[in-house]
Amino acid sequence: MRGFDSRGQSPIRTLSTPLLVINFKTYLEATGKKSVELAKIAGKVSQDKGIQIAVSPQFSDIKQVAESAEVLVFSQHIDPVKPGAYTGHVLAEAVKSAGAAGTLLNHSERRIKISEIEEAIGFAQGSGLLTLVCANSSGVSAATASLNPDMIAIEPPELIGTGVAVSKAQPELITSTVKRIRSVNPLVLILCGAGVSSPEDVAKALQLGSQGVLVSSSVVKSRDPEKLLAEMADAALAPS
Amino acid sequence: MRGFDSRGQSPIRTLSTPLLVINFKTYLEATGKKSVELAKIAGKVSQDKGIQIAVSPQFSDIKQVAESAEVLVFSQHIDPVKPGAYTGHVLAEAVKSAGAAGTLLNHSERRIKISEIEEAIGFAQGSGLLTLVCANSSGVSAATASLNPDMIAIEPPELIGTGVAVSKAQPELITSTVKRIRSVNPLVLILCGAGVSSPEDVAKALQLGSQGVLVSSSVVKSRDPEKLLAEMADAALAPS
Amino acid sequence: MRGFDSRGQSPIRTLSTPLLVINFKTYLEATGKKSVELAKIAGKVSQDKGIQIAVSPQFSDIKQVAESAEVLVFSQHIDPVKPGAYTGHVLAEAVKSAGAAGTLLNHSERRIKISEIEEAIGFAQGSGLLTLVCANSSGVSAATASLNPDMIAIEPPELIGTGVAVSKAQPELITSTVKRIRSVNPLVLILCGAGVSSPEDVAKALQLGSQGVLVSSSVVKSRDPEKLLAEMADAALAPS
Amino acid sequence: MRGFDSRGQSPIRTLSTPLLVINFKTYLEATGKKSVELAKIAGKVSQDKGIQIAVSPQFSDIKQVAESAEVLVFSQHIDPVKPGAYTGHVLAEAVKSAGAAGTLLNHSERRIKISEIEEAIGFAQGSGLLTLVCANSSGVSAATASLNPDMIAIEPPELIGTGVAVSKAQPELITSTVKRIRSVNPLVLILCGAGVSSPEDVAKALQLGSQGVLVSSSVVKSRDPEKLLAEMADAALAPS
Repeated sequence: MRGFDSRGQSPIRTLSTPLLVINFKTYLEATGKKSVELAKIAGKVSQDKGIQIAVSPQFSDIKQVAESAEVLVFSQHIDPVKPGAYTGHVLAEAVKSAGAAGTLLNHSERRIKISEIEEAIGFAQGSGLLTLVCANSSGVSAATASLNPDMIAIEPPELIGTGVAVSKAQPELITSTVKRIRSVNPLVLILCGAGVSSPEDVAKALQLGSQGVLVSSSVVKSRDPEKLLAEMADAALAPS
Repeated sequence: MRGFDSRGQSPIRTLSTPLLVINFKTYLEATGKKSVELAKIAGKVSQDKGIQIAVSPQFSDIKQVAESAEVLVFSQHIDPVKPGAYTGHVLAEAVKSAGAAGTLLNHSERRIKISEIEEAIGFAQGSGLLTLVCANSSGVSAATASLNPDMIAIEPPELIGTGVAVSKAQPELITSTVKRIRSVNPLVLILCGAGVSSPEDVAKALQLGSQGVLVSSSVVKSRDPEKLLAEMADAALAPS
Repeated sequence: MRGFDSRGQSPIRTLSTPLLVINFKTYLEATGKKSVELAKIAGKVSQDKGIQIAVSPQFSDIKQVAESAEVLVFSQHIDPVKPGAYTGHVLAEAVKSAGAAGTLLNHSERRIKISEIEEAIGFAQGSGLLTLVCANSSGVSAATASLNPDMIAIEPPELIGTGVAVSKAQPELITSTVKRIRSVNPLVLILCGAGVSSPEDVAKALQLGSQGVLVSSSVVKSRDPEKLLAEMADAALAPS
Repeated sequence: MRGFDSRGQSPIRTLSTPLLVINFKTYLEATGKKSVELAKIAGKVSQDKGIQIAVSPQFSDIKQVAESAEVLVFSQHIDPVKPGAYTGHVLAEAVKSAGAAGTLLNHSERRIKISEIEEAIGFAQGSGLLTLVCANSSGVSAATASLNPDMIAIEPPELIGTGVAVSKAQPELITSTVKRIRSVNPLVLILCGAGVSSPEDVAKALQLGSQGVLVSSSVVKSRDPEKLLAEMADAALAPS
């Protein structure tokens, strides 16, 4: 595990790479008790293999997941609002208080305005949350990099949920996007998302210059998520 | 407590009236541990006075509130989505699994499309959640009544958070709205929201034909919420 | 043509039934000069057959269409905003000034919040615009009826653009929806939309209790829109 | 007038600087006939002073303004949609066909998602429209610059409509933002917006490194817009 200093506030945090992030979405296979079970499996693989794993459960599952499993917990979204009269919104302080260490932002299934990304990053930092902003294209990745999140996940939406990995389908998209991001921001951690479903996809993503992957249905709906995650971890940790 | 049969699915539920609903919004005074403390106070008043109280904490606090306090728990919002690839959304099954008995919908701080209200009511019923739809006017109240939620809260947004109760500022709005709602829907439980902050406001709201109140900052930010809630309960239960 | 009194303000307006409304959407076949050509054809059929026809072109085509053709012109949407600092919004006064006589609201491709429907109806009435609110279900139709628009179009979104008419696929949906709307609002004009593409569909829609139809691609993309519209007019005017 | 090559497609276009852009918003003073009158005044000043001026009227006024006045016409917004079934949306081809030469995007009163900015720029380019993206902060300006619009307007929303110019209130914000934009994009034309209301504000904005201004209420609501625009033009053209 190489150390990676986040720009985080107060409690100095360390994100190590390679990083595996598992998005639980609103799959029933990762809701309620099952969110805890899957997070524990992720925690076990993380310990066994010595690789950092983050899970991103639904808001109402954050607390029990954070209390039960040895993994980083990311919220799936926060709203750019301060404490107050914002019924139905997701407050940075609330998910932090429930145990989240970070949050996704601008996932293709929950896109937000460009000004909201900047504001939400500010609120997250103010609460000590890491930020992982999803970007649907090379241009949006570079744009996002100017807003200084901790992590960017490159996710062409047409590949999400297809089982076709962007690293395989469009390898040049990864390399050119990494290059564009780096021209703007040398520090942001770059993840590869969308369609990453096999250990080979993970290996390929890292070879192309990303420092981790954002996965979802392949793991959440796997018959043997522990085996798959362990193999992904091995692929991520293998010398390329 | 008069019994009120909800249109609920599977587990037969009973909403009794008068009903006090406390919206925690995203106030820090009702976030994290403090959400549990306030919910316990509400539960104590509910038991002491024999009046039904529901609290509506943030998504990430639902589970700990539901496990700690003897009150109904309402989510502040759900999204009209089914389980699946809906990152960052609030799933009916997820808040139900966390212990919610119902959900607010269309609060003036989280308004949704008319088609989404109908869909969300459907998803809530499918998961066994009660629905409380907020309406910002007499017309929207009547419109909402056609969509058959369990409860409607009349909340002129210009009065929210002002400490000026709609029941006092616009008593005729309550009576005419109750009449319009009843012409469409004889069963829906009608609550009075917006600016309800004193026991007198509660009494007045019930005298005007509503069956409960939706309160927020007056209770959440009260120096002595137990005393205020107890007085509100007395006012609600007093013969009018 | 039977007369139908709208609830219109100042200049007394008369909507006659049956009413054919043609939604130009953003089809290139009805953009710019072609919007004028199609509107002229609609105007000619309207005159020839003695039937009221309205066309709904894009915002930027409203003025030239209104100046060139003998038809009612409806905007496809207005925003619930007053004159002022609302860059990029569609002002009731602006489309009225360009020659619109009314506006669609809440089309399934441009859904708005329930409170916005009420506000937009208010702004439209204040500017002397007729309102045609689209509703995607029986419940939403009844709800909408409480907001007192001039017209409601029943449009199950799953049938839009399919060429399968709701009047044929779900005739009982039309009759039950008409009944629900009428229980709330005896005056609103009821149109049948979604998939209406042939003269038979028009006849069927009227037989089921609607007073007109909202059509789009079938006419806009027709090789001979004049012939199709004339046949639709005949079908609408035939004694049922 | 120095020439400025836009990245435009087909018909080679030239934007010259300094550039004055007048946003008509939804002010009644610039709606309907009055939009034409104000655009003619802008055109007269443009000719008299030899300075490029663009006006941005409401969608329904674009055509008459473009046909009447010798100025560039910008739409206030376009939607990132292609021709087709998009009722109530603003199509690039439609505003182009009405005579627009460009479009604003992401104005603080009409903010859009980051992915939509990129898509809308693509649709605009495909239709031969220039793009002017508004940005509410230094970070968003830099982010936007990565998406390669033709122009960026720096507009801190807290100053819009105040009559307090960003160039005066926060001069360092302009210089630092210009620097951040240039580190990402050497070609994009940079305008200064928000609160620019006097000739002095214009001069100051250009001295700080911007190449034009985006104005609104100061001109639209001026008792003598011709005089004010002429003075703004002189200030913009004066050697600094």
